[in-house]
Amino acid sequence: MPNPTAAMLVIGDEILSGRTKDTNTNHLACALTAAGIDLKEARVVSDEHDHIVDAVRALSARYDHVFTSGGIGPTHDDITADAVGAAFGADVGVRDDARDLLAAHYAEQGKEFNDARKRMARIPDGATLIDNPVSIAPGFSIGNVHVMAGVPKVFHAMVATVIATLSGGKPLLSETLRVFIGEGDIAGPLGALADGNPDISLGSYPFQIDGVFGSNIVARGTDPVRLKSVIEQLAKALGVEHK
Amino acid sequence: MPNPTAAMLVIGDEILSGRTKDTNTNHLACALTAAGIDLKEARVVSDEHDHIVDAVRALSARYDHVFTSGGIGPTHDDITADAVGAAFGADVGVRDDARDLLAAHYAEQGKEFNDARKRMARIPDGATLIDNPVSIAPGFSIGNVHVMAGVPKVFHAMVATVIATLSGGKPLLSETLRVFIGEGDIAGPLGALADGNPDISLGSYPFQIDGVFGSNIVARGTDPVRLKSVIEQLAKALGVEHK
Repeated sequence: MPNPTAAMLVIGDEILSGRTKDTNTNHLACALTAAGIDLKEARVVSDEHDHIVDAVRALSARYDHVFTSGGIGPTHDDITADAVGAAFGADVGVRDDARDLLAAHYAEQGKEFNDARKRMARIPDGATLIDNPVSIAPGFSIGNVHVMAGVPKVFHAMVATVIATLSGGKPLLSETLRVFIGEGDIAGPLGALADGNPDISLGSYPFQIDGVFGSNIVARGTDPVRLKSVIEQLAKALGVEHK
Repeated sequence: MPNPTAAMLVIGDEILSGRTKDTNTNHLACALTAAGIDLKEARVVSDEHDHIVDAVRALSARYDHVFTSGGIGPTHDDITADAVGAAFGADVGVRDDARDLLAAHYAEQGKEFNDARKRMARIPDGATLIDNPVSIAPGFSIGNVHVMAGVPKVFHAMVATVIATLSGGKPLLSETLRVFIGEGDIAGPLGALADGNPDISLGSYPFQIDGVFGSNIVARGTDPVRLKSVIEQLAKALGVEHK
């Protein structure tokens, strides 16, 4: 059975202007790979309602799970809850359980639970809350879409919570052979090996260090014995040693 | 006149598995912002022909310019040229000028110009080559799609070449106010200011440092005087100093 599939949707002008570097996609990619869920696509879209709705619908229809990051804070540019609600045709309003969590949190901190903060309790009808152990304001899951905060520390905690509830396939393992040979000399033997071993995905990722060309050749699959065997065959074909 | 729009398409399983961190999107975002071109969307897709073709068609139809990164090397998993060609209905074959560049390069290096390396001279009909001063194998532009290497050093060089040929709008400038106030207390004054200044885009990007909450509030626009004025109004409304 093939692994379940997933997509990431990063919401935020600050990524597209270059001001902020997105690190959440890489974090999610690593967590999904370890859980046996294949991340098949990632998108970054701007803080525009229609654009978010379109992306949520497209990804939700195409993949088993969709993870979003960003746009669930209290300010006017936080429009993710409304857009995701719209994508599912769900009304969005302040929900009692989310409001109670936040009210208790701000009471404890001696801060006013004002209208802006109440915005963070706006959740689409029918959604399930995702716990936020860092700063309380919850994420939510609706359909196959998991809506999480953009702040990396919060995103990481929410990803851990959500992934624990999903059933993955076999974790994808990898074995790497690092060679100081130009890709043009690797391509022939590598292609032959890829043809002969359809259960293993073989990729070549070239680098250049101080003018010397090389490549990390990565074999990916779910069977560690097969991975080791294919990498050893490749090392032999290229005349290099594999430790 | 609004700025021209652009999208980024990163092609590569290694990004989606989490093994490699994509830095090219951030590089392109910064370069486009400086050139007055608005990056509106970024996507990462896997090394699958149909998936690349779909993404190229969708982004090419929606935005003024599309930049791709990855999949133009000599190995079997380098399928970008064929996929982009297919998206435009263009045949893809070894082109004389690209082949001559590569042949001269490998002759100089005393390396065999084998079939794998000749693959890098496969260019869709009607495309224009993009110079590669680092490792010679060219990128290409076809229609509004600019196809570039994934290796960051080569990608950077190609981006510089391509952007110099595009006419942008006014560069997007930004002014930041960093405050140690929770977003929930910022949201009210910030929202009012956003409503009253439609020519300025205002975003709030929260952070947490050693348990203290704060936010970088970024005003973006093309007029530096207006930016300064809006940020000063905001500082006053929040009761903080702006240096």
